[in-house]
Amino acid sequence: MGIFKAPVGISNRHIHLSEEHIEALFGAGYTLTKTKDLSQPGQFACEETITLIGPKGSITGVRVLGPARKVSQVELTETDRFKIGVKPPVRDSGKLEGTPGIEVEGPKGRIHLDQGVIIAARHIHMTPEDATKYSVKDGDHVSVAIPGPRGGILERVLVRVSPDYALDLHLDTDEGNAFGLVNGQELEIYSK
Amino acid sequence: MGIFKAPVGISNRHIHLSEEHIEALFGAGYTLTKTKDLSQPGQFACEETITLIGPKGSITGVRVLGPARKVSQVELTETDRFKIGVKPPVRDSGKLEGTPGIEVEGPKGRIHLDQGVIIAARHIHMTPEDATKYSVKDGDHVSVAIPGPRGGILERVLVRVSPDYALDLHLDTDEGNAFGLVNGQELEIYSK
Repeated sequence: MGIFKAPVGISNRHIHLSEEHIEALFGAGYTLTKTKDLSQPGQFACEETITLIGPKGSITGVRVLGPARKVSQVELTETDRFKIGVKPPVRDSGKLEGTPGIEVEGPKGRIHLDQGVIIAARHIHMTPEDATKYSVKDGDHVSVAIPGPRGGILERVLVRVSPDYALDLHLDTDEGNAFGLVNGQELEIYSK
Repeated sequence: MGIFKAPVGISNRHIHLSEEHIEALFGAGYTLTKTKDLSQPGQFACEETITLIGPKGSITGVRVLGPARKVSQVELTETDRFKIGVKPPVRDSGKLEGTPGIEVEGPKGRIHLDQGVIIAARHIHMTPEDATKYSVKDGDHVSVAIPGPRGGILERVLVRVSPDYALDLHLDTDEGNAFGLVNGQELEIYSK
């Protein structure tokens, strides 16, 4: 068993949009406006937000993340799903087969996604060099130890390896709040 | 080490009120209206709700739990605190020294609590008979194993023993949502 440390990045609900959907929501020829770089190289938070409309309610001010992707994807938390009445499964990013759809409204239009709403499965990004150093490989699962009065262990954290990544453990706000974590906090990771 | 099973009860934000505060918020001589018995004998959810007003925002529809207590206490989640800008500590119920206060508004009046806002520390209720059977005592800490794709271990779960209690593991909605739990689900508890 190996032990290493990684910073935690806590994601709130957000949406990734295709070029086609960016134009449908924000207008023809529209380009996203970057406000902040994210931990993963090339990924950024945008000035733009949209409204998600589910059968039970809406959530306004949902952040768009850039750059544009091939396929639009909505990442919600379990807490959100009770508000809007959509029941997404816990999935790895990009694995959208059989996931529920949702209505998305922007300043210039509204679209219906047939599928693409997920609760993102927790995962850890790293480079091939990190993976070698920590003796793990893409697709492995590791565990995370959380210290403190609300401490515990998060199991089944998917390892994702790419030269385009930076070392970062991605949890959502439900997980961050349940354990009282703050963004950037260093946590101990246990591999088998 | 011992292992036993207990059902989980997931608490959303709520408020316990003193007789004095019930009258200040709902009117002189007012009595709470029970809508549902809770897992702990004698405890119940009420028809009445109040609004919590913090420096950054308000939360409406906060459920009152009965019966009246000696001291009013507000139980929020970590998620809630970002909404309203109050920063409660994680505490055991009733340990309110040094906790933040808040404004509370009811249909007939508004009060200021000088203190009493907490994030309830996770705990497990049981009878003395349960405690004997499971070889634990009041004040012990146990761990909870969570199965499934978002599985893990919750450590430092306080054991609370009283003849007035029923066996029930109390988590809040952040914890329940982070692990994808449902009310009443049976979980494995590990004692040292």
